Formats: sequence, structure tokens, C-alpha cells
Amino acid sequence: MNENLFARMQELRDLAGVIGLATWDQETYLPKKAEAGRAAQLGTMQALHHERLVDPRLGEWLADAKPATPDETAMVRVLARERERAVKIPSALVKALAEAQSHALSAWREAREEKTFKPFQPHVQKLLQLRREMADAWGHDGERYDALLENYEPGMRVKRLTPVLADLRTKLVPIVQAIDARPPPKRIFEGKTFDSEAQWGFTMHLLEAMGFDLEAGRQDRSTHPFTGGTGLRDVRLTTRVFPHLPLSSVFSTIHEGGHGLYEQGFAPEHDRTTLAQTPSMGLHESQSRLWENIVGRSQPFWSYFYPRYQDTFRAQLGDVPLSDFLREVNRVERSFVRVEADEVTYNLHIVLRYELEVALMRGDLQAADLEAAWNDKTRDLLQLEVKNINQGVLQDIHWAYGEFGYFPTYALGNLYAASLWKAMNRDIRGLDESIGTGELAPVKNWLREKVHREGFRCDAEPLITRITGAGLTDDDFVSYLKVKYGALYGI
Amino acid sequence: MNENLFARMQELRDLAGVIGLATWDQETYLPKKAEAGRAAQLGTMQALHHERLVDPRLGEWLADAKPATPDETAMVRVLARERERAVKIPSALVKALAEAQSHALSAWREAREEKTFKPFQPHVQKLLQLRREMADAWGHDGERYDALLENYEPGMRVKRLTPVLADLRTKLVPIVQAIDARPPPKRIFEGKTFDSEAQWGFTMHLLEAMGFDLEAGRQDRSTHPFTGGTGLRDVRLTTRVFPHLPLSSVFSTIHEGGHGLYEQGFAPEHDRTTLAQTPSMGLHESQSRLWENIVGRSQPFWSYFYPRYQDTFRAQLGDVPLSDFLREVNRVERSFVRVEADEVTYNLHIVLRYELEVALMRGDLQAADLEAAWNDKTRDLLQLEVKNINQGVLQDIHWAYGEFGYFPTYALGNLYAASLWKAMNRDIRGLDESIGTGELAPVKNWLREKVHREGFRCDAEPLITRITGAGLTDDDFVSYLKVKYGALYGI
Repeated sequence: MNENLFARMQELRDLAGVIGLATWDQETYLPKKAEAGRAAQLGTMQALHHERLVDPRLGEWLADAKPATPDETAMVRVLARERERAVKIPSALVKALAEAQSHALSAWREAREEKTFKPFQPHVQKLLQLRREMADAWGHDGERYDALLENYEPGMRVKRLTPVLADLRTKLVPIVQAIDARPPPKRIFEGKTFDSEAQWGFTMHLLEAMGFDLEAGRQDRSTHPFTGGTGLRDVRLTTRVFPHLPLSSVFSTIHEGGHGLYEQGFAPEHDRTTLAQTPSMGLHESQSRLWENIVGRSQPFWSYFYPRYQDTFRAQLGDVPLSDFLREVNRVERSFVRVEADEVTYNLHIVLRYELEVALMRGDLQAADLEAAWNDKTRDLLQLEVKNINQGVLQDIHWAYGEFGYFPTYALGNLYAASLWKAMNRDIRGLDESIGTGELAPVKNWLREKVHREGFRCDAEPLITRITGAGLTDDDFVSYLKVKYGALYGI
Repeated sequence: MNENLFARMQELRDLAGVIGLATWDQETYLPKKAEAGRAAQLGTMQALHHERLVDPRLGEWLADAKPATPDETAMVRVLARERERAVKIPSALVKALAEAQSHALSAWREAREEKTFKPFQPHVQKLLQLRREMADAWGHDGERYDALLENYEPGMRVKRLTPVLADLRTKLVPIVQAIDARPPPKRIFEGKTFDSEAQWGFTMHLLEAMGFDLEAGRQDRSTHPFTGGTGLRDVRLTTRVFPHLPLSSVFSTIHEGGHGLYEQGFAPEHDRTTLAQTPSMGLHESQSRLWENIVGRSQPFWSYFYPRYQDTFRAQLGDVPLSDFLREVNRVERSFVRVEADEVTYNLHIVLRYELEVALMRGDLQAADLEAAWNDKTRDLLQLEVKNINQGVLQDIHWAYGEFGYFPTYALGNLYAASLWKAMNRDIRGLDESIGTGELAPVKNWLREKVHREGFRCDAEPLITRITGAGLTDDDFVSYLKVKYGALYGI
């Protein structure tokens, strides 16, 4: 492989790593008064990364890449795609988007303050217009949303995604109704306090049990949990601890731990190359959701960990049976807010956003009608009447960032996770029994071998197809829900 | 001022800031397995910084700088000097030095392992040769050491420094002898344990009392205490805590706190410019030493803080009188190891290294004779016979890094500190009384106004001259020692 090309690729990955560090630090340890300075530093670093990426010499080196192995071919393909997308956007448009984002964020905060959509509406309009321009610059075959999806989910298309999500929507509604008809779980945490340090200790215990390598990563605290870091040997998770909401730290840690295991699992020989990254946000999300929901909210998992959790919180949980705890961690409830939704209703929140985003990008829906459309869909999908707009169309920050096309990756994560879980159970006998003894290594090792080590050798759906024998489907997810919630709710 | 020039200066400062973050992180929170990756990231960042600095366009912009104010003139001068020095060194020489450093570091570790100078000797020879080449590339008027001094102490020269240090040497020897003849302080900490968390809490209390802004900085733990960070609103100190050596955390924190106050005190309007930095390592060290030794080991300081320290460690110190504590924190002892030396003998360790370095650079001393020369000077200056080479010529890491010319900045720090202290007492009446009530703001504010806010507007000695009315001198330091230790030791 062309030496200059290889060196530039490593440089770009190093820059991305350092940007990762500065971003992590911003959310964890940055002193308050340094926020503006950090924004400037990050701006400088991102501009440098961009400059080195669009550098015409890199274009020449890519044209004369001479990859010598299949991995090198993949490295070159990924880098060339990244560069091509960067080159296609004029710097004036990049700047216009950055400015529009900045204004939209302020307006979004103001709108939430005043609980009205109005101040935010013109900014949504502006961001949509800029994103349409970008989509056209990137290129598409008539469906602009495809060009945006490509940012997060290379290879995915509206015509592939829409029927799957439509089918999912149709199947979810009766499941939610059936659960709705059953009595809800008891509230086992009400009025109880859970010591922060003890919660922290338990999350560290969980990370170790999952096989997260604490010599190649760490966990810290932040307001919004996330996974970041600077490379596959430096993966940084955060969690948050609330004394009155003990499940928050537990499931944040398992969720981010799933992301973290993925990042730690990239092939060491891909370090500092474009292959040591995920091919899609949906696939990344499948790792966190598989761990958080499928493993981390399962009967076998807690049959082992619940006695340990009770030991940690004897006074609070000593007399709460496992069955009540399990029903609590799998509480299903139609609710307004996506980030608080359970795994059954969650995808309805995504379908809602996806349908709106596609309509917005096509011009079938205008920003002026967005609030009403949101409320209609909430009624339609969740049988809820939005009263507080901050729990309605203003709840997510994504659109204020001009991020259209991101939401469906969460649903893809759920669907991929269920399909991977089915394949894992086909490959490994007695997986539940193993988990029931606290032995989580088989899960980690299977994912490592099948998913993590692959990195960005190919796009997400082809990889899923190779592993499971089928591509994107909602069948495995729906079956999983039916079996699990059938047992939990007696339906 | 030329807009391109200003933007490039800000970019370079941002890059330096991010390098600062990655370095701080390396010593505090970096996962063990990420060390090699971090070295690569830092290498990439430093190479980028170098490339942007030597960029010919920057040379053109500097030639067409159009500074509009005295501050802008100073900014341009500092940046031009930095660039000129970078441009003069061929990249082959930079690379050769980096490689020689890397090998020398391994050899130094091996030599310490085997307790013999031999494996290290050829590397010292090689590094000296490369440093001579660099000195010649930078340029000098016959004294190569001057060109190296310029790295750390712009404007300082051997012919200025040698007579001052020679005079200091002459005056220190009889002071040490006089103290030697007196009974040593009692050992008040022996066999006692000091809780780590309580020590940490006390150091945070000290930082607040010093006026260190914890919204524009932080303190963490590291093996070797240092001050770093990413800018004047993001200053990061570290300290270390040993349960059996309680003074270590106290004086590390005060020392780094002095450095930290300096960095936080640069003029806000100089942020992201070349003026928001020290003109010299010696001046930087004067800030840490003034706080650590002159303020932090003084009778007034502890007359206020000792009762609070006793409250923290009632069982250990409740029956130890202030006078015994004060004598303990000012224990004077001829010893082998520089970093453990007290403020009286410390400069003898520096004189020793300075005389050897100058002789090495001139070619009057060969690497082969370095160990013997070290031992001779130790006998001469400290009346000690080196038995363990790891406490002799192999004790410091500086030479293994090829750093010749750094050591004298420590002595300059001590001398500048004493001169600043004298000037401060001339300007502020009742300084001791103020400190004795725990009121340290007058110290901080005077240093902020006279030293910190100046940044790199001019070189260190001219600044000292402007503040004190005299340039570099050992008179103030020697007077300070005589008064203080005369009282403590009854001489």
C-alpha cells in the first residue's frame, strides 16, 4: 500500500483520537470556565482534520493506493468514501450549517424555556434547506433522505428501511395493547435511597463481569452517558448515578459497556486505520442494546446478579423477590419521552420520527406543520395526547443539531441485536444457563469474533447477513418480544 | 495585525493546548494499554505543530505582520523567534535527536538497573554531539551552552549566569556548615499514618486559600506532580499522596499551585496568543518556589494553617507544637538527591550540574569522565561520598532526554523568588501579618499584577529588573536564608 497514503490515514485516525479525547474531557473533567476555549480547540482540530482529508495529495495517493491485501482494499475504500463525501461539500456550506446549528441550538433552548415551537420553527426550516443542499451535493437517486442516512448508516436506503419499519409498527401496536391490558408491575424503589458510591461499585462489578478491559478503558461520570475515547485500547464510558433511580446507573453502564466492548474488540492490527471503526451507528447500537436489553434485562442475568445487588442494598431490596425486580426492569408503559421508553414501545418513538423526517426531506411536510404532525402521530402510535411540548416535538436535541437521518439507527440497533441474539443462540448451546451462572464470556467472545473484529471491513447489513443468514428484518425482534413479554405479563 | 498571521498563531496555540491535554491525560487517566497509542497521537500532533510553525507562508505573514499595538509587536516577536529556531534545525537532526533520546532513555533505565554508568555513557556522548550540532545551527558567539539555555531561558547567557552561581556557591557552603553544627529537628512523623482522603482535603483547602480558581483549573493525582492544562482557564495541577509522608502532598500542592496561579494569571486578552506563556522556566519556577518555600514554609503561614492541619490530624499532631512542625518543614540536610533537597542545599545540587554541563558542552569534560567528575563535585560541594550511582550521576532523567541547559532554571527560580519577595515586602506593608491570618490574596494579587499578567511581553531578567530595580542577583536569596535559618537554628 502507498506509504504516503498509509501515513496520512494514521495521521487522520490520530487526529480523530485526539478530538475524541478533547470531547470526552469536555463532558467529564473540563473546568467550567474553559468551555469556550475548548470549543475553539475542537474547532481548530476539526478544521485541521478536514483540511488533511480534502488535501488534493490524498486524492492522488488514493488513486495510486496499491492495496496489497483485502484489509488494505477495505481501508482504502472507507477512506476514499470519507474523503469523497467531504470534498463534495463546499466549505461555505459547511460554515453555513455550523452557524445554523449554533443558532438553532439557542432557539431550541429558548423554545423549551417558553414551551412553544415558534422560536424554533424557522431554524428547522433553515436546517432542512441546508441539509437538502448537502444531500444534493453528496448525490442520490431522487430520495434525498438516502444521502443523509449515508452519514450514519452507509449502504442503507429508504426503500429498504420503510417496509421493515412499517411492518414493525403494525406488529408492535397489538403487543403494546396486550401488555396494557395486564396489571402493571409494583413500584419497588419508591421512597428508597441508594448510596451513590455503592451504585458506582456495582456498575464497576458489572463492567468486569461483561469483560470490559479496564486496562484498555475506563468509566467516569457525566450528565449524559456516552462512549468515547481515543482508540481501541482507550475506550471511555460514562454513567450517571441518581440516589432515587438506582436502575439508571445499572442500565447506563450495561448499555455503554456494550458500546465499549465493541470498540475494544476491533482487531488490534486495524489500530490507527479506517477499519478500526463501526460501519454503522445501527450496528454500534445493536451492541449496546443487546447487552442492555436482551442480556441485561433477562431472567438468567438477574438470577445471578440480583442476589449480589441485594447484598449491596440489603435494606432496600432484601425483601423484594427477584420476580418483582424482573418485572420492574421490564416495565412497559406508553410514554411521551423516547429516552425513557422501554424496549417494547421504544421503536414506536423511532417510527414516529422516521416518518416525519422522510416527509420533511421530501417536502411533503413543512416545518410549520411539524408540531401538529408530531402530536397526530403520538396519538396514532402511542394513544397519548401531547400536553407539554417539551415532552413532544421539542424533546430531542437531534434536529437542533441539524441531524436528520440519525433516529432510525436506534431502531436498526434493536432489530440487529435481536437477529444477532438468535444467531448466537443457534451457535452456542446453553447460553442462558451460562449467563445464569454469571458467565458472560461466551456472549462477549461470540460478538467479538463475529462483529467486533470485523470493524469496517464491510457495511452493516452485508455483515449481518453473513452472520445470521438473513439481512435486516423485524421478525427476530418481534419473536423475542413475544416470548419474553408473553412470559412476564402472562399473555 | 495580519489576519492570516493572527489566525495561525491561534491555531498553533490551540494545538499546543490539545497537546497539553493529551500529556496531562497520559499522566493521570490514560488506561495502561493505551500508552503506545498515546505516544503515536502525541507524535502526530507535535509533527503537525512543527509543520504549521515552519510553513513558509507563516514566514511571509511574519515579514508582513503589521502589528498595531505594543502587545501585537510582542506577539509577533515571540512567534518569530519560535519559528526561527524551529526552521534552523534540519528535520534529519530533529529525527536523530528523537531516536537518540529514545535509546538513551532505555540505556539510562538499564544503567540504573545495573547500577553502573557504562551502558549510559555512549548515549550521553551521542546526545552531547547532537546538542552541539543543534547549538551551532541555532547560532552562538562561541559559547554553545548559550544556544541551549535559550530553549528554557531566552536571553540568559553563561557569562551572566556563571559569576552569580559561583558567588552563590561560595556563600552557601558556610551557611550549610553552620546549620550542620546545630542539633537537627525532631522527627515528628515517624511511625504515624495520615489518611489519604484527609490529606487530599487539606491540599484542596490550601489551593482555595492560595486563590487558585477551581472553575478555571483542577487538581488530580499523578506519580510525579506537575502543572499542565490547555490554557489560562484550564490549568491542571497534580499532587501525590503518601500515607507515611504527609508533607509530600502539602508541598507538592503549594508548589504546583504556585505554577498554576501563574498560568491562570496570564492576561485574558492574551488567550490563544504567544503572550499567554512564561518568558522563562526560571521565572515559572520562581512562582512555585516563592509559594512553596518562602510563603509555604514560613512561620506566619503555619501560625494560621497549622491549627487547621492539627484539626485534620488530631491523633497524629495534636501534641506536636508549631515550633517542632516548623523546624521539621525546614529541615536542612546535606543529601545526595536533588529532588529531595531542602531550599538551602538545593542550589548546590544545581551548581554541580551546571558546572558539569558547561564543561561537557565546551568539550572540557568527556562523557567517559562524567561519573568521576560528578563524584568529585559531590565531595567538594556537599562533603558526601557517592556510593549508590542511582543517587549520583544517574539520579536525574534530564540528560537521558538530552536536556542540557535546563538545570540552572531551578536555581534562577530560587533567586528570582527571593528578589520578588523582597520587592513585594517593600510594596506591601504587613505582609507577614496578613499571611498569619490566612489572608494570602495580597501575595497572589501582587504577583498577578507584576508578573503573571505580563506573560511573554518581555524576557525574564528585564521583567525582574523592572519589578525589583535590580537584575539577576543572589543577594536577596542569601539574605533571606540568613534571616530565616538564623532564627530557626539559632545561628
